[in-house]
Amino acid sequence: MSTRALGPAALALTRALAVVVGRALDDARRVRVACSGGPDSLALAAALAWHARREPALMAEGLVVDHQLQDGSGPVAARTAEQLRALGLAAYVVPVEVPRDTGLGLEAAARACRYEALRAPGPSGVRPGVVLLGHTLDDQAETVLLGLARGSGTRSLAGMPASFGADPLFVRPLLGLRRADTAAACAEWGLEPWQDPQNADVSYTRARVRHEIMPLLEERLGPGIAQALARTARLAAADADLLDELADRAGAEVARDGGLDTCALAAQPPALRGRIVRTWLTGAGVVEPSAAHTAAVLDLVESWHGQRGVDLPGRVRVVRAGGQLRLSRPGQEAGAQPGRPCDLPGVH
Amino acid sequence: MSTRALGPAALALTRALAVVVGRALDDARRVRVACSGGPDSLALAAALAWHARREPALMAEGLVVDHQLQDGSGPVAARTAEQLRALGLAAYVVPVEVPRDTGLGLEAAARACRYEALRAPGPSGVRPGVVLLGHTLDDQAETVLLGLARGSGTRSLAGMPASFGADPLFVRPLLGLRRADTAAACAEWGLEPWQDPQNADVSYTRARVRHEIMPLLEERLGPGIAQALARTARLAAADADLLDELADRAGAEVARDGGLDTCALAAQPPALRGRIVRTWLTGAGVVEPSAAHTAAVLDLVESWHGQRGVDLPGRVRVVRAGGQLRLSRPGQEAGAQPGRPCDLPGVH
Repeated sequence: MSTRALGPAALALTRALAVVVGRALDDARRVRVACSGGPDSLALAAALAWHARREPALMAEGLVVDHQLQDGSGPVAARTAEQLRALGLAAYVVPVEVPRDTGLGLEAAARACRYEALRAPGPSGVRPGVVLLGHTLDDQAETVLLGLARGSGTRSLAGMPASFGADPLFVRPLLGLRRADTAAACAEWGLEPWQDPQNADVSYTRARVRHEIMPLLEERLGPGIAQALARTARLAAADADLLDELADRAGAEVARDGGLDTCALAAQPPALRGRIVRTWLTGAGVVEPSAAHTAAVLDLVESWHGQRGVDLPGRVRVVRAGGQLRLSRPGQEAGAQPGRPCDLPGVH
Repeated sequence: MSTRALGPAALALTRALAVVVGRALDDARRVRVACSGGPDSLALAAALAWHARREPALMAEGLVVDHQLQDGSGPVAARTAEQLRALGLAAYVVPVEVPRDTGLGLEAAARACRYEALRAPGPSGVRPGVVLLGHTLDDQAETVLLGLARGSGTRSLAGMPASFGADPLFVRPLLGLRRADTAAACAEWGLEPWQDPQNADVSYTRARVRHEIMPLLEERLGPGIAQALARTARLAAADADLLDELADRAGAEVARDGGLDTCALAAQPPALRGRIVRTWLTGAGVVEPSAAHTAAVLDLVESWHGQRGVDLPGRVRVVRAGGQLRLSRPGQEAGAQPGRPCDLPGVH
């Protein structure tokens, strides 16, 4: 296979990997590809295998996580590992037990297990330096639409980052390519990917976005909508990165004795206030405060009229007392006292 | 009518107007409502009339712009003005001639004419201090979706501002209410709004968003999608305001002799670079540079490999020469010379 000329889709995939492979070689980092057996990650694995055949110094391996949530997941994982070995990659299956009682939902629990497996040392005892994930531009577009449906702001429109983490570094080299490209690359390489029946099951929100919403948007708003959503993600990610950084710095100026100074908070630009409140709540142990919760807490500053406080999940209440926002838990509640008034730029 | 108790939708509308009416009274500013005769602006006009009947000091009037683009637009406008007078508002029709050769498209030309009419003095020679526009939460949600389809970033997701301008101040008091609320308020007030046939004509992109895309999103992503889109708009607007302000300040540091210093530009956070380039291009007369054009110009800094330059609409080219980005026009082109290399934080 390595002696044949690459088809156009396979060529696009190998090119998409060139930079990350070059860096991994420079840094002598082991590259692990996460592979479900589906077209995206199988094509990604094949592209990594192609580089590994040309660069003997490249330490490359494939990992198949068996979530054990669907009937027959074991044989699918075993067959995928076989396909990776046929490509010349060291490959192994990691079965995981996804706990069903985390309260986070099965999908989030499965994701947590998957990432734990992807970070862990392989059979040789060596940790990966880089982990490749096969998400494409289409996945990114769907993620942006789902973030839009939540309505929780610029970060949720930023979709999936192109890279994150440090040890290992997770990289998504295919965010600029389409799902059609990975399918075509599999065909060019003579690979038969697994078709996950869940991807077609429209009882899942993502499958509805993929099979019902995106095609309608393409048809009624014009082609190019997936690319526009992916471009939105890139722009929103850069914006959210800078705003988060500014909010972190400003948050340090606003913090007082575990609470937030209401006047110092009000003096911040509107774009930073919600972020400061959200970071404060998260740091105090509130799990994923919603946009509505954050807005209600901000109203204690921006629309103060003696509210009793804001109740949040986890039996936590935020009250305004003595010119501060404070977290209270039942039994240790501070009475809400009117704080001194302060200037509120940007609130009309 | 003013002696009857208000219905729930009419009550919601009058409440939505309370703050802007109170401020107009404080500042003795004349309030003009823009009314097409459709349900949103007719209900808005009725709510303004309700306040005017209770507050004789409130200077209120209705203005109907006749764009003269549809057959029968004159009688529609005249009937609408009659409805406003029956509500007790001073009301008049302003016919406008929309030029068809602006190169901006008919819709943009009509909008420009409409805003000119809305700012102008009325028959009494008095300018309005406040102009009310009847856009609802549904309009906002559609605008965000259209911005998303363009894929041009956070500002395009910010939708329509709740208020803008100064003299007059334009205000959209109904952005928190639904189209169903304005229709219900018209019914409660016994008003028969005009139904614009263009709103149902799916050859218009906005009509497709309204009648085909929004209902599918509501059905397949769950109810609340319009509210989520409107919340996205509010959050994105605050983010875009701060980022634009930061970019304006940073842009002053990056400007050199009518061009941009490539190293100073590269030293800015990624979120500001595109904004600085876009503002520079706009200031140099490039009309509405697209996200793709801005990205191509940024590539002269972030991915410099000796490109010849970037051609933009209006026969303008951006070249990199002598460590600067410069605009050139045919006949006065500077040769592209490799600039000195510089650090590029945030580019991987």
